[in-house]
Amino acid sequence: MNQLLCNLHHATLLLVVNLLIFSTSFSQSSTYKNDSVLIRSIYDDVLVNGEIYENLRSLTKGIGHRLSGSHQADQAMVWGVDLLKKYEADNVFVMPVTVPSWSRNDIANARVILSGGKEETLHITALGGSVQTPKDNPLRAKIIVVKHLDELKGRDDVNGKIVLFNRAMDPVLINTGAAYGGANDQRTFGAIEAAKAGAVGVLVRSLTHSLDTIPHTGAMSYEKGVPRIPAAAISTVDARILAQFFKEDPNLEVEFTMNCRKYHDVEQGNVVAEWIGSEHPNEIITLGGHLDSWDIGEGAHDDGAGIVHTIETLRLLKAIDYTPRRTLRFVLFINEENGNRGGKKYAEIASQEFERGEKIYIAAMESDAGGFSPRGFNLDASDEYYDLFKSWEKLFEPYNLYHFKRGWAGVDIGPLKKLEHRPFMVGLVPDGQRYFDFHHTENDIFENVHKRELELGAAAMASMIMLIDKHLPTTK
Amino acid sequence: MNQLLCNLHHATLLLVVNLLIFSTSFSQSSTYKNDSVLIRSIYDDVLVNGEIYENLRSLTKGIGHRLSGSHQADQAMVWGVDLLKKYEADNVFVMPVTVPSWSRNDIANARVILSGGKEETLHITALGGSVQTPKDNPLRAKIIVVKHLDELKGRDDVNGKIVLFNRAMDPVLINTGAAYGGANDQRTFGAIEAAKAGAVGVLVRSLTHSLDTIPHTGAMSYEKGVPRIPAAAISTVDARILAQFFKEDPNLEVEFTMNCRKYHDVEQGNVVAEWIGSEHPNEIITLGGHLDSWDIGEGAHDDGAGIVHTIETLRLLKAIDYTPRRTLRFVLFINEENGNRGGKKYAEIASQEFERGEKIYIAAMESDAGGFSPRGFNLDASDEYYDLFKSWEKLFEPYNLYHFKRGWAGVDIGPLKKLEHRPFMVGLVPDGQRYFDFHHTENDIFENVHKRELELGAAAMASMIMLIDKHLPTTK
Repeated sequence: MNQLLCNLHHATLLLVVNLLIFSTSFSQSSTYKNDSVLIRSIYDDVLVNGEIYENLRSLTKGIGHRLSGSHQADQAMVWGVDLLKKYEADNVFVMPVTVPSWSRNDIANARVILSGGKEETLHITALGGSVQTPKDNPLRAKIIVVKHLDELKGRDDVNGKIVLFNRAMDPVLINTGAAYGGANDQRTFGAIEAAKAGAVGVLVRSLTHSLDTIPHTGAMSYEKGVPRIPAAAISTVDARILAQFFKEDPNLEVEFTMNCRKYHDVEQGNVVAEWIGSEHPNEIITLGGHLDSWDIGEGAHDDGAGIVHTIETLRLLKAIDYTPRRTLRFVLFINEENGNRGGKKYAEIASQEFERGEKIYIAAMESDAGGFSPRGFNLDASDEYYDLFKSWEKLFEPYNLYHFKRGWAGVDIGPLKKLEHRPFMVGLVPDGQRYFDFHHTENDIFENVHKRELELGAAAMASMIMLIDKHLPTTK
Repeated sequence: MNQLLCNLHHATLLLVVNLLIFSTSFSQSSTYKNDSVLIRSIYDDVLVNGEIYENLRSLTKGIGHRLSGSHQADQAMVWGVDLLKKYEADNVFVMPVTVPSWSRNDIANARVILSGGKEETLHITALGGSVQTPKDNPLRAKIIVVKHLDELKGRDDVNGKIVLFNRAMDPVLINTGAAYGGANDQRTFGAIEAAKAGAVGVLVRSLTHSLDTIPHTGAMSYEKGVPRIPAAAISTVDARILAQFFKEDPNLEVEFTMNCRKYHDVEQGNVVAEWIGSEHPNEIITLGGHLDSWDIGEGAHDDGAGIVHTIETLRLLKAIDYTPRRTLRFVLFINEENGNRGGKKYAEIASQEFERGEKIYIAAMESDAGGFSPRGFNLDASDEYYDLFKSWEKLFEPYNLYHFKRGWAGVDIGPLKKLEHRPFMVGLVPDGQRYFDFHHTENDIFENVHKRELELGAAAMASMIMLIDKHLPTTK
């Protein structure tokens, strides 16, 4: 036993020493130089011959927004298949996914009526999945204002009222994604907790640092056995005004009307393109973004950018004459926004294929944080991979990518994390300061995406995929 | 001799060892913790209580563009004095500087006339400092198209023509500032080299990666003894079209008219605010940007951002109850755009004060690269300071600032570099991908500056100034 421990200890030490030698000598090695030349050629190509910006224009201006279940989502799938074929993937197919279908339709309006009779219009839009307001008359009720879900617990003054959730995203968090994550319980669970307390509707402060009159939609949930009450996003400016009015006039009423509704599920799918690996065709490296978007704006940053990053990666690796060792899978996922059924289906099939010994999904990468100037990558993987990931950091320094940290990789590839062998998962990290200005709004349009910033994101993705393909150890 | 060398060698070794201990232990030290707490409080304050965005609104919307010598530059000086007094600087004064005065006035138009008689309007604007076109009739001539100044040397076909300089900024350079630097010889020296070859006017392709119809102005030069010919910026789209036309029709003519002109020099000045040091009041740390801008747009990024970064640094360091050890000098420089007379005057006085043994200008920092998401800092200083600078890198990691490199610090503080004792000079480095979309155009307006990105820049500047004040060794 002691001898075994000692041997193990010795082996561990050797491993550590080897890793140290690897990390410190990697930047002088010929592999490093070769990688660095290839990465430079990827950047050169995208900045001179890039087709990504025009592809984004075609998706956003030619099709526009494309919520799961919509006709536009069908069109986007055709668009994706055609483009992946144009760039000569070995094969392109649609992996069928049954997706929800919901529409905000054409009515969403609200006003506040003060005790004195004065009225003000409020800027709202339905939260995704909400039921409509009662058919023949608008919802009208007194309100209460809270900042946290748990403020509703045990209260008896909520009954018959509309709840305004008015917690702002925390401005001091440098990472706007973390600020979003810290505030979106109001949007996701607000209708459930409000209904449990007897409320008849909810208004949720839009998730943005911006102070403006633009409502931000997004997914919300209902719970079995809890009444389904209408839920709308209200702009940050309107939420502030309404909360201020309420302070001065607790008897004010809010009236709102929406005719959004749910329809039958429909069959759409993930668009998948394969570039078969030359050495290990059964080892799959997945990269993607999500093809669906919310049904306002054009889904340009969320996630048109990720879609064209993915497709441009195919174009770029072909342009530099790269030969992948593993099979690269370019996936345009469906239904990230309201169900993630595309991501779940993909992982389900991956798991079956692994169990049958057919394929092993060794790595996955996602771009779903916008088309802004890239800052680096998040790694979501076992500890053993961390040093390898960090050893690539120096390769990206000439391109101003410094963020190499553990973190979230992406919603669509998220379910792959549960695979028995836990893939090496990476998320592209762009600068996030502007993202929530546009997120889930009518302003998420092509004009708000910058050509060079978008191109730099594609080069970052293509370079990372190449490094994974070349250097990730083979899993047995 | 050997003994001396040996001692020196020993001393050097000790220094190296000390520096190594310093760098590796700094991040565990109580100083580091204290610095890190102070920096966090600076960031918290700017993101919650920041006044910088409204100050930029006031400068850009209240005054607008403000070329040296203009009435608006006078107004901006008053604005600066008032604001620095409001934030309770110990004293605020104007350091007189004689500045040039030039105006583009109200006419700048151009068209191309093809051999067949067809005409197209070209989008141009006068380059700063250009003479006007002949008074009573527009300048009309055949053209030649070149990409480099030296293509004009020894040519006999330039006489009487208009030269189009059509070299694009190099897209593969990740650093857009480097691409700008690699292309602006056309703008700066184009009129001189073209006139030497006998040309009667020049059109210079606008310095931007953007393909649009917006001309970008900027400084140009004349040379004694060389005829002064009119010089205009032409938009990138027009430059491409004109070059294409010329290929097909070498006899086409261009006609352009401008009524810009130079006026008498006027007296304006650098606005200087001092916060007197508690320990070493004669050691001066200068920070600033430039108050003047080009006379189109609002000078929001260039360099309204640097001006409000500087002023917000004063507000922030007061807000966290900081007591500076050295004297902090907040300087709103005049005339960066067309002469740098403000920066030169400032350094001249610094040199005199040093020679008289009154003051020593130990450090300087500038923000003149826009109000975008900050990425880090450039250091322009003696090698001995590099390790100290790099030791601060970890403090900025929570704020996504990773760029800590040797590089250019700024035009206004540039002349301080020649001081005998060579100050520690730092430039704020924001993300540069969007900068040249706006630079020197009608689009450099308040609406194109992002609130949080601007705030993060101010926190970066305030944090760096605090570290310099606390940790830079005292110069004897």
